Amino acid sequence: MCACGWGRHSDTLLFPMTEFFDTIVRVRYAETDQMGFVYYGNYYVYFEVGRVEYMRHHGVDYKQMELQDDSFIVVAESKCRYIHPARYDDPLRIRTRVAEFKRRTIRFLYEVLHDETRELLATGETVHVVCDSHGKPKTLPEKYRRFFDVQADVQTAAEISAPPAQ
Amino acid sequence: MCACGWGRHSDTLLFPMTEFFDTIVRVRYAETDQMGFVYYGNYYVYFEVGRVEYMRHHGVDYKQMELQDDSFIVVAESKCRYIHPARYDDPLRIRTRVAEFKRRTIRFLYEVLHDETRELLATGETVHVVCDSHGKPKTLPEKYRRFFDVQADVQTAAEISAPPAQ
Amino acid sequence: MCACGWGRHSDTLLFPMTEFFDTIVRVRYAETDQMGFVYYGNYYVYFEVGRVEYMRHHGVDYKQMELQDDSFIVVAESKCRYIHPARYDDPLRIRTRVAEFKRRTIRFLYEVLHDETRELLATGETVHVVCDSHGKPKTLPEKYRRFFDVQADVQTAAEISAPPAQ
Amino acid sequence: MCACGWGRHSDTLLFPMTEFFDTIVRVRYAETDQMGFVYYGNYYVYFEVGRVEYMRHHGVDYKQMELQDDSFIVVAESKCRYIHPARYDDPLRIRTRVAEFKRRTIRFLYEVLHDETRELLATGETVHVVCDSHGKPKTLPEKYRRFFDVQADVQTAAEISAPPAQ
Repeated sequence: MCACGWGRHSDTLLFPMTEFFDTIVRVRYAETDQMGFVYYGNYYVYFEVGRVEYMRHHGVDYKQMELQDDSFIVVAESKCRYIHPARYDDPLRIRTRVAEFKRRTIRFLYEVLHDETRELLATGETVHVVCDSHGKPKTLPEKYRRFFDVQADVQTAAEISAPPAQ
Repeated sequence: MCACGWGRHSDTLLFPMTEFFDTIVRVRYAETDQMGFVYYGNYYVYFEVGRVEYMRHHGVDYKQMELQDDSFIVVAESKCRYIHPARYDDPLRIRTRVAEFKRRTIRFLYEVLHDETRELLATGETVHVVCDSHGKPKTLPEKYRRFFDVQADVQTAAEISAPPAQ
Repeated sequence: MCACGWGRHSDTLLFPMTEFFDTIVRVRYAETDQMGFVYYGNYYVYFEVGRVEYMRHHGVDYKQMELQDDSFIVVAESKCRYIHPARYDDPLRIRTRVAEFKRRTIRFLYEVLHDETRELLATGETVHVVCDSHGKPKTLPEKYRRFFDVQADVQTAAEISAPPAQ
Repeated sequence: MCACGWGRHSDTLLFPMTEFFDTIVRVRYAETDQMGFVYYGNYYVYFEVGRVEYMRHHGVDYKQMELQDDSFIVVAESKCRYIHPARYDDPLRIRTRVAEFKRRTIRFLYEVLHDETRELLATGETVHVVCDSHGKPKTLPEKYRRFFDVQADVQTAAEISAPPAQ
């Protein structure tokens, strides 16, 4: 996965993505299991932390999105690929980006790295549907849309990386 | 702790309690930590299971108590003493009883045993306050009171264990 | 997904699988989140329970596999699709089968149903690699292989469903 | 509880303690339950974080204590009093101190405050026994002892707070 705002999702398709935003978490004893590694289900908790901090960084207070705008980012799909085990007390870098955003759905991608060795430990993905508090799908309120807008982000990236005009 | 409906809570006080009700849970991999034992905070999850099954056995559907009667059994205090470690896949017997019941508070006691060896692994206690959905303390609705009534239970126990009249 | 031992994994491929084995779990309060549903990461705990009980049912004591045979079923990939939310106290039926078994890898499929309404709540998949306690991949010990053997199971199913010879 | 290094543990006894060390954690969605508050068992996870960061701040790398010195700080008792509920996304200040230290046992005290409002949400306590990896109690290795030494800390505090000599 490149960090340039464009990524390969399948073998055939290139599509725009937002930049990664990184959050650091430290592995808790509670999150390990008797194999001495982080329990496989707990990576999804790290993804949650990465996702929420990604939103906060982009100006979205998810707590207020639920309370004030009756908009819940409900998980429809999740997956994780485990490459190397994370261990107790490891500082983990959770890299999060938006891979796709439509009016009612958002797709996040994640990378989990050991923050000191920079070894890639896991990658993951979650797909979300915007719902009201009764679980009924709805369009994401206007004011939040630009925060997830992949095209806008890519455009900005394109501007930044564009060669100087002669 | 005796199983007869009367117990020693401190060194000086005897008081009535309900009978123990037992629930079996099996230790999940997710509940262990890298020491190879059940993580200390997870005993409180077992207490929750014991408490809910105790209530169900006594005719109280806790889910409905929340939904229909706006009565939440909020935890005010919890404690646990760890005697021997529980391990992955151990079948645990969670023994639960009501030690005290007032109009607004309920105190539960727990014992956690290995269900095969009958070794006592842990003991615990939780104190609860009945609240509405806004967190305001309230009196437990009439219809639920008899289920927690320690005196009634002790009376029944007394009748059962009373020597036959001559 | 059919229950006959053959399933459609993609749109084009039919392949053999073992029969589903079902385990019932009840949703704990600890497993819900403030949306009032089961937290998305906790389905992976249910998958673990389903997987272990599947193995136990087929004669494999996973605890002993780790202790006596130094064989750990390490998770390499996991995914879940959430169809309808599970709620507190819901009785869940975790249906588990082996979709693929090679000497070093096992792929499990899961379905989570509400045990009373039989509504399908979620489906999932985990891929595992057999490792020793140092995390090094190894071949699954001979004695365990037949328990995961998809072909054998399908053969049995074929025998059972074969029309009576004339 | 005062922050001066001396505290009242029971109604009758004054005893020395170390200073509080503070750690900030943010409540995760995974840690809430359907009541909309932090699940009562998860405060013990916060205590773990506070305890480990307390040790790290005082020069003790707990991970290495386990790996290099075969010394595990096993929990023997835990308790928590819940005063006000913590909610999703709340920044929590976990205040941790050592209340008692003997050669084989350590007692920690905790306070959980909302980091913005400074409201006291919960208080707690854990008692630990130093064990080897087989669970056998042992004396804490010499090199770690001074980090938990309450008397030393109090002495330092006394020096600092001593009125200037005339």
